[in-house]
Amino acid sequence: MTEADFIAALRTLAPHPAARGLADDAAVIEIGSETLVLTKDMMVEGVHWPREQSLADVAWKLVAVNLSDLAAKGAKPVGVMLGYSLGADDAAFLDGLKAALETFHVPLLGGDTISGDGRRTFSLTAIGHATDTPVPSRSGAREGDGIFLCGSVGGAMMGFEALTQGGTGDRTPFIRPTPLLSQGRALAPCVTAMMDVSDGLLVDAWRMAEASGATLAINSASVPIAAPEDRRQDALRWGDDYALLFTAPVDTALPADAALIGMVEPRGKTSLLLDREWLSGPAGLGYQH
Amino acid sequence: MTEADFIAALRTLAPHPAARGLADDAAVIEIGSETLVLTKDMMVEGVHWPREQSLADVAWKLVAVNLSDLAAKGAKPVGVMLGYSLGADDAAFLDGLKAALETFHVPLLGGDTISGDGRRTFSLTAIGHATDTPVPSRSGAREGDGIFLCGSVGGAMMGFEALTQGGTGDRTPFIRPTPLLSQGRALAPCVTAMMDVSDGLLVDAWRMAEASGATLAINSASVPIAAPEDRRQDALRWGDDYALLFTAPVDTALPADAALIGMVEPRGKTSLLLDREWLSGPAGLGYQH
Repeated sequence: MTEADFIAALRTLAPHPAARGLADDAAVIEIGSETLVLTKDMMVEGVHWPREQSLADVAWKLVAVNLSDLAAKGAKPVGVMLGYSLGADDAAFLDGLKAALETFHVPLLGGDTISGDGRRTFSLTAIGHATDTPVPSRSGAREGDGIFLCGSVGGAMMGFEALTQGGTGDRTPFIRPTPLLSQGRALAPCVTAMMDVSDGLLVDAWRMAEASGATLAINSASVPIAAPEDRRQDALRWGDDYALLFTAPVDTALPADAALIGMVEPRGKTSLLLDREWLSGPAGLGYQH
Repeated sequence: MTEADFIAALRTLAPHPAARGLADDAAVIEIGSETLVLTKDMMVEGVHWPREQSLADVAWKLVAVNLSDLAAKGAKPVGVMLGYSLGADDAAFLDGLKAALETFHVPLLGGDTISGDGRRTFSLTAIGHATDTPVPSRSGAREGDGIFLCGSVGGAMMGFEALTQGGTGDRTPFIRPTPLLSQGRALAPCVTAMMDVSDGLLVDAWRMAEASGATLAINSASVPIAAPEDRRQDALRWGDDYALLFTAPVDTALPADAALIGMVEPRGKTSLLLDREWLSGPAGLGYQH
């Protein structure tokens, strides 16, 4: 079965509204008087990280990517549950895990470990506590809203190239990304839609536009990039940066630094206009799971 | 690194009190005014199920074993997050998942899917809402309490043998166990300690005794078994039954059927007395992770 077919089938099993967690998004669920945000991400050896990356950095990234999903919901991390396949470099994994948990002030609550040969799989479930309800979703972008980016894109691309091809570039944005937790919490009450940019700005903007039934018109020159100017188009298509993409009325006094990178328009020919040209994505717009 | 060393190292990273989730137990955490119970279990191809077992039954079991951890905490399941490795028989997995979710009235909230060769790994995180606080733990058994078992042991052993060796025995207790959710919720306010019997009655009783700093004295003839009488000693040592082991004052009016199988005594020579003989476990008492 293809991954798309499997996920489509899972969705038919999961009519619960929180099951948007299947769509590469976090799950949001009310428990008593509290609202929780849940996210799960798996990383597989040979697929989700280059061999040049240390297991310490893999551990950090596993934590960071899940916390980035919480950031996009304005949620405060409550804890993480780890699933771990034992093997080589376990001590390095522990070092990176410790560094990430301490840096982001999030406790490890529990988990499970397994042994076995073959490709190793790591999984993490992060639990967050929504600080503002309703929790921001991808589907709230409205015609006339501004499109904003908190953070930049392209840094992970440059870091990846430095890691795998050598060179003097800063590897940190790729190997040890920082989820924008405080920015997400500050922005949550102000936004009409928000998501983290994990797979690439354009593909993620496409998803937001699809979810909102609108067209996102982006001006590429306005996008903050952490890459040379001649790599701007690549930076818009590369993933792993974990910036926050959001929409809000253009006159909103924003509580976090963000660049206005476009405007939400009525749904047009496709979901995305880049420099006034219609894109036919999402193929080619960024990393596809 | 051995699994024990890895878990010991994880514990040093996780001073949070909810991190008892690392000790094969569920994590308990307060969020605002609510108390959550979280549990995570992984199943690996070639390790955690016999090849005769269908992937539909593997899916069922993945849900059931996690819900059993919630049952032991008296928690109501709120939802599950799935981690899934795509491969053969995905449709069968979906069938079993659907059956379990519907039977136990728990929604799928989200998850992640991966592709890759090699042994497949499935993981599930279950989220529960505590219905009675403080949530039952393993550490509350007190001298003079009765030791009770809700459910029986040995049925999974018989089911496993029927599955792998042929025969007419009922395979259901092994392939599609039922977590005792309603019993766990009813019992939670009455017990001094509670846990589910996942690895074997004796080894799990040993763990409860260790956590409580007491000795558990069990009368083997009093243990309800779902196996022929000549298999009684095996039944006490086999896992996968998901009965609830708990302690409570002997005169408690219990709201669920349970058998009195022994008494809690002051900590003696070892943690476990079986028919007045000291056991030196936990090696040999049941399944060890």
